[in-house]
Amino acid sequence: MSDSAIVDCAFYEGGRRQAGDLTYEEAAEKTKYSTKEGAFVWLGVVEPKEAEFKEIAEKYGLHELGVEDAIEAHQRPKIEMYDDTLQVVVKTAVYTGQEDLIEIGELIIFVNRKFIITVRHGKGPLDDVRKRIEERPDLVESGTGAVLHQILDRVVDDYEASAAAFDLDLQDVEKQVFSEERTNPAQRIYRLERETIDFYRAVRPLMDVVDGLARGQYDLVGDPLHEYFRDVHDHLQRVHGEILGFRDLLSSSLQANLTQVSVQQNEDMRKISAYAAMLAVPTAIAGIYGMNFKHMPELDSPFGYPLALAIMALVCLVLFRKFKQSGWI
Amino acid sequence: MSDSAIVDCAFYEGGRRQAGDLTYEEAAEKTKYSTKEGAFVWLGVVEPKEAEFKEIAEKYGLHELGVEDAIEAHQRPKIEMYDDTLQVVVKTAVYTGQEDLIEIGELIIFVNRKFIITVRHGKGPLDDVRKRIEERPDLVESGTGAVLHQILDRVVDDYEASAAAFDLDLQDVEKQVFSEERTNPAQRIYRLERETIDFYRAVRPLMDVVDGLARGQYDLVGDPLHEYFRDVHDHLQRVHGEILGFRDLLSSSLQANLTQVSVQQNEDMRKISAYAAMLAVPTAIAGIYGMNFKHMPELDSPFGYPLALAIMALVCLVLFRKFKQSGWI
Amino acid sequence: MSDSAIVDCAFYEGGRRQAGDLTYEEAAEKTKYSTKEGAFVWLGVVEPKEAEFKEIAEKYGLHELGVEDAIEAHQRPKIEMYDDTLQVVVKTAVYTGQEDLIEIGELIIFVNRKFIITVRHGKGPLDDVRKRIEERPDLVESGTGAVLHQILDRVVDDYEASAAAFDLDLQDVEKQVFSEERTNPAQRIYRLERETIDFYRAVRPLMDVVDGLARGQYDLVGDPLHEYFRDVHDHLQRVHGEILGFRDLLSSSLQANLTQVSVQQNEDMRKISAYAAMLAVPTAIAGIYGMNFKHMPELDSPFGYPLALAIMALVCLVLFRKFKQSGWI
Amino acid sequence: MSDSAIVDCAFYEGGRRQAGDLTYEEAAEKTKYSTKEGAFVWLGVVEPKEAEFKEIAEKYGLHELGVEDAIEAHQRPKIEMYDDTLQVVVKTAVYTGQEDLIEIGELIIFVNRKFIITVRHGKGPLDDVRKRIEERPDLVESGTGAVLHQILDRVVDDYEASAAAFDLDLQDVEKQVFSEERTNPAQRIYRLERETIDFYRAVRPLMDVVDGLARGQYDLVGDPLHEYFRDVHDHLQRVHGEILGFRDLLSSSLQANLTQVSVQQNEDMRKISAYAAMLAVPTAIAGIYGMNFKHMPELDSPFGYPLALAIMALVCLVLFRKFKQSGWI
Amino acid sequence: MSDSAIVDCAFYEGGRRQAGDLTYEEAAEKTKYSTKEGAFVWLGVVEPKEAEFKEIAEKYGLHELGVEDAIEAHQRPKIEMYDDTLQVVVKTAVYTGQEDLIEIGELIIFVNRKFIITVRHGKGPLDDVRKRIEERPDLVESGTGAVLHQILDRVVDDYEASAAAFDLDLQDVEKQVFSEERTNPAQRIYRLERETIDFYRAVRPLMDVVDGLARGQYDLVGDPLHEYFRDVHDHLQRVHGEILGFRDLLSSSLQANLTQVSVQQNEDMRKISAYAAMLAVPTAIAGIYGMNFKHMPELDSPFGYPLALAIMALVCLVLFRKFKQSGWI
Repeated sequence: MSDSAIVDCAFYEGGRRQAGDLTYEEAAEKTKYSTKEGAFVWLGVVEPKEAEFKEIAEKYGLHELGVEDAIEAHQRPKIEMYDDTLQVVVKTAVYTGQEDLIEIGELIIFVNRKFIITVRHGKGPLDDVRKRIEERPDLVESGTGAVLHQILDRVVDDYEASAAAFDLDLQDVEKQVFSEERTNPAQRIYRLERETIDFYRAVRPLMDVVDGLARGQYDLVGDPLHEYFRDVHDHLQRVHGEILGFRDLLSSSLQANLTQVSVQQNEDMRKISAYAAMLAVPTAIAGIYGMNFKHMPELDSPFGYPLALAIMALVCLVLFRKFKQSGWI
Repeated sequence: MSDSAIVDCAFYEGGRRQAGDLTYEEAAEKTKYSTKEGAFVWLGVVEPKEAEFKEIAEKYGLHELGVEDAIEAHQRPKIEMYDDTLQVVVKTAVYTGQEDLIEIGELIIFVNRKFIITVRHGKGPLDDVRKRIEERPDLVESGTGAVLHQILDRVVDDYEASAAAFDLDLQDVEKQVFSEERTNPAQRIYRLERETIDFYRAVRPLMDVVDGLARGQYDLVGDPLHEYFRDVHDHLQRVHGEILGFRDLLSSSLQANLTQVSVQQNEDMRKISAYAAMLAVPTAIAGIYGMNFKHMPELDSPFGYPLALAIMALVCLVLFRKFKQSGWI
Repeated sequence: MSDSAIVDCAFYEGGRRQAGDLTYEEAAEKTKYSTKEGAFVWLGVVEPKEAEFKEIAEKYGLHELGVEDAIEAHQRPKIEMYDDTLQVVVKTAVYTGQEDLIEIGELIIFVNRKFIITVRHGKGPLDDVRKRIEERPDLVESGTGAVLHQILDRVVDDYEASAAAFDLDLQDVEKQVFSEERTNPAQRIYRLERETIDFYRAVRPLMDVVDGLARGQYDLVGDPLHEYFRDVHDHLQRVHGEILGFRDLLSSSLQANLTQVSVQQNEDMRKISAYAAMLAVPTAIAGIYGMNFKHMPELDSPFGYPLALAIMALVCLVLFRKFKQSGWI
Repeated sequence: MSDSAIVDCAFYEGGRRQAGDLTYEEAAEKTKYSTKEGAFVWLGVVEPKEAEFKEIAEKYGLHELGVEDAIEAHQRPKIEMYDDTLQVVVKTAVYTGQEDLIEIGELIIFVNRKFIITVRHGKGPLDDVRKRIEERPDLVESGTGAVLHQILDRVVDDYEASAAAFDLDLQDVEKQVFSEERTNPAQRIYRLERETIDFYRAVRPLMDVVDGLARGQYDLVGDPLHEYFRDVHDHLQRVHGEILGFRDLLSSSLQANLTQVSVQQNEDMRKISAYAAMLAVPTAIAGIYGMNFKHMPELDSPFGYPLALAIMALVCLVLFRKFKQSGWI
Repeated sequence: MSDSAIVDCAFYEGGRRQAGDLTYEEAAEKTKYSTKEGAFVWLGVVEPKEAEFKEIAEKYGLHELGVEDAIEAHQRPKIEMYDDTLQVVVKTAVYTGQEDLIEIGELIIFVNRKFIITVRHGKGPLDDVRKRIEERPDLVESGTGAVLHQILDRVVDDYEASAAAFDLDLQDVEKQVFSEERTNPAQRIYRLERETIDFYRAVRPLMDVVDGLARGQYDLVGDPLHEYFRDVHDHLQRVHGEILGFRDLLSSSLQANLTQVSVQQNEDMRKISAYAAMLAVPTAIAGIYGMNFKHMPELDSPFGYPLALAIMALVCLVLFRKFKQSGWI
């Protein structure tokens, strides 16, 4: 293929991929003359440059507004009908476990009966999906609607995996919050919160998109597929519910963390103060016997010194016990 | 029965359970040829393995998507119509009183006029329900819709019991928060919050499911049952309202707990500091009479030492009184 | 009357109560043969036992589900139509001023053209309502719909009285929060919050009930009564708005209380610390002149001691002034 | 006029006020016989007593429920149609700048083609409105609907003025929160919050009232007036948005104030502690040279004392510098 | 041009601007006699005075209410239809990076087939828009609807730029919150919150306006433009989602900041207290050997003094190590 943005371009007919790689121009030709039901081109594009994608768009007759979306990315998930071509924008989510826990990518899909063009920005599961589809002739035969379903199904599966991994992270943070060790995971909680907000913005608008597909608002997606999209919608709802739960829990974590941190720090201060207060007693006693009065009978006694030391030790011991009982030290 | 996942399989006709255990294949046969109104098979399955349940599904003609749900569980409560078979997914809630206060299980029910298949994951009240139903021929005679009602009614009754037990737990936490003892139930509050979120996710979506049944959106559930499902819906609404109340109360508990903990810790610090400050007075006085000036008339007086001690004692006493009055010690 | 659960049973006709107490069986007979418009039986029941109320229910043909509600109570406010009999469940609220500020009771009302059965759990204003109605023949003549209105009107009036009393309580708490005295009304705030949640759960669902009555969804309540129910609805909306306001204010109170408590406690600590710090100065000076160096010229001077004391006093005075200015002591 | 509750009563015809004050009885007569379009009576009443207003109500045929509202006040803003007479309840808001920042009054308006009766409780802008209307014959000629619009327009203008003044107050509080001075405006923030809640309860329900008028749900308000009521509605929406903003900001202020107060108090404590810690150094050194060991060579040196003082001074200076750098003092 | 409020006035026909500046009176004449499709006047006005704009309004037949809006500004975004002229009110947002991060301006647009009048208050992107339009004859030819789209498109683009810049600001604040340095960005967080509230009030109501245009509720905006307005709506939704995210994050920042500030201040206090407590040990020991007992054998030993010093040093060292390990100093 002459151009690096195009990662795969193939013609499917009769349930299987036709041998031989095509250029996108050849593929576009094919879509025009093929009249067979279930015959279509699948063109996979990755982060195309403006000039390049405009040429593709022209060949396939894509709408100006959709083309802009595909080049710029940073769209909100949505579905749009331009003439007979559906444009679906989806966010992909991949759990990485690193700083940006959940990496959000974007998928712009142009689909009608003759072709499906997938434009990917960032990571995305398209290779897997294509492989899986090519292994199932029955899916390929059902045409582009089934391919669209497979893609969305996989995207939402990835959401569920991300949510599950996120939950583990959250539980880890909870352990930190309530652990005996002096940790302050405030920043980590905050970062998780940022993640959920991004995640939510990927998931929430997609629910309306998939709902529309499940209700049969688009001719492209026929009756037998509705139930499958409804299934995707159910999964989306679950992820959505989980995210809302995460946000509530994170908000409570932040508050609980404030309590825990303040409790732990106060305990430290109390311990230090209690020891210092304990030491003030021998200091005061020593001060008394350090006074220079002429007439201090204790000073002359041979037992004066050891007695004074004994009293100091005793008082400290008693205080130590009492403080221990009060849980102060 | 040859297979451990099937816990009970029986044929009901004319208001009573027909004698003799059936294999699920035999039962499936029966459903095909029985034409009597109110005659049906009830097949109870527990956490089936994939292969096993797929065979069952084939015999009873269950839809591919529903089968996946039944095997994997972890669904959101929902109702789905596949051909003439309703699939209902419900979460069960059992209050255990242990770490996971409320144990959430799952029930997937496939039901049409001829059969009802209940797939259970985790704990669930199905044995009880079956026993109760078998004792009431009038219920059995009304067919599978009445059985479905009995199951949901029981599930929601369990919700109410769980909510009531949860409320006791919450009141216990409240007592801890406001008790004089130095306790910090932050973690327990947080754990309760997590529970309510799970509980909420079980209850909220079920309201739509039961509402649909009460409004007669499904032929299987005829008119005389609508009022009964509406009754279940009322109970669900009550549980729902209670859960929302729990969440508000828990959120306030967390905040109140921060106040109480900080008040109590501050009291400790204040007490320690007050005592230490009190001790600083004799120390200062002793320091003064420990100075080595040549001309310090008090030092020569025979009453100097006892007077000095008396002054120290007096000042300490006065301070003690004052601090006591201020509520500092 | 043979049975204690029945507190009043009378037959009304032509605008007035017919002389003579009836048993509920006699009254039930009357409803069957009386054909006069506006002639009806009003049967008042209080916390009936199961067996007893089931007999009553049979005589009057009440629906199984409604009967359960009447015996168990603990329902959510609702309205239900069983055949030609309306079942209305209402929560009553009585401000007691004691621990449970607002005592929530329950009223289950079965009403059709021929009879009205009121089942009361806990306190309720029914005696008053009956007295007021019996004094107004025009109301009695309008039949059971007017009686229902009178009851709901009174229930909502009680809500308003409770809300007004609650507001005074809240203002009292606010005074405590911002008072100079060292009080910590956190627990009281929390308790008020619990009350509002219960109160809210009594009021919110009733709005839908009354709205349905005002919109004429039930034949029993004819056109001239709609305006009167709309009036009740307006009052409910006001109470509802007030409760929402209470909740916001309580939530802010809790936060403001944290601030106030922490400010006051910090002031105490600061005062103690400032005094202790002040005392450290003479201690240090005394320490210096307590050193045992051979060559310390001040020690030999006859003015050494008084000067040292004067310096100590002066420094303390200056510090005292400065701390006073800073508002520290 | 014989009665003090009636503040103004006049008959308008042909665009202008007819000379001569009328009693309300005379005016009521006029409304019966005048058939001219745009001829109407405007009766202004202030906080009427029950008996008095009941007489007025009888003359003008007002509905029992509306009369109760007019006497008691304390209604929620609403619009009600009784026969051909509209009853509109509106809250007035006057910014006073004193304790109760925004004084909420009430206006009950009874209006049909023949008369408009305005009942005022508390302050209200009716005098101004009447004056302005009497100066514009075109308005008077359009009849009572235009008068109603003028009143509502003015009420909402007052809302906007109150909101603007409130915003200044809020900005003042913000300055206090973040000022260097040790102020704690928690109570003031709380009081503002209470105000916004009352204000909100005046504004929010009025939106539905005015929306109904703008949509032409009432015959009295004809088509050319709809746009004018829509304009009032726009202004209401703006005030509504501002109030919601106030509430968010006040809630954040309370939180920020807690932070600021705790920061400032901590700074004080840190400063005190740092100075006390600094003083502990010379005390410790002095203590060492105050020990009574026989063999302490420094004590005999003539430079011992000045050197010890120098060391003390040096250490204090170094600490002072370090603490200063750390921002501790 | 005779008047400074008018910044540009031109007649467009056949896709291009007609040469020669016009007075607004001449332009108004043109609109009356030109019948060509796509021929229109674009009159640009900036912050007009009342008298001046009333003259313009009369020439172009603008509605009294719209004229008020245009003079006063401070409107809520809205769309209004007066006869055949649309009035659109939009808020402009320019990120300045200074105290008022986002400067909110206002644009009032009167538009029908014959003319478009744009009234600007504050900064706005109109010059740019006009330039861009004049460079594209195809846009000019499509008439005033296309001009309206261009303006709104640009306004929303500015929103997106402002939101992006705001996000950078927010990230900067987050860094401050969690930095090791002792900063307290509470005020900055609060200021950002105020900004988001203003921003929200600009964006939220505009969504309804643009939605109405995209759904074809106004004849002026024909079918081919709907998709373009829908595109604007998508962008608005994205900005809206971002703002909601900002608010959640700012609220969490404020809370996290409280935690961080309190942690840092507590660390300071702990460090100071720990050092002071450490110093109390040699003071106490020195005090003991400063006592004046006759019989203190250590005092006579030649190794007494160095040993005492060594013990002091040792204890301090041990404590230092221990405190270091505990993370206290």
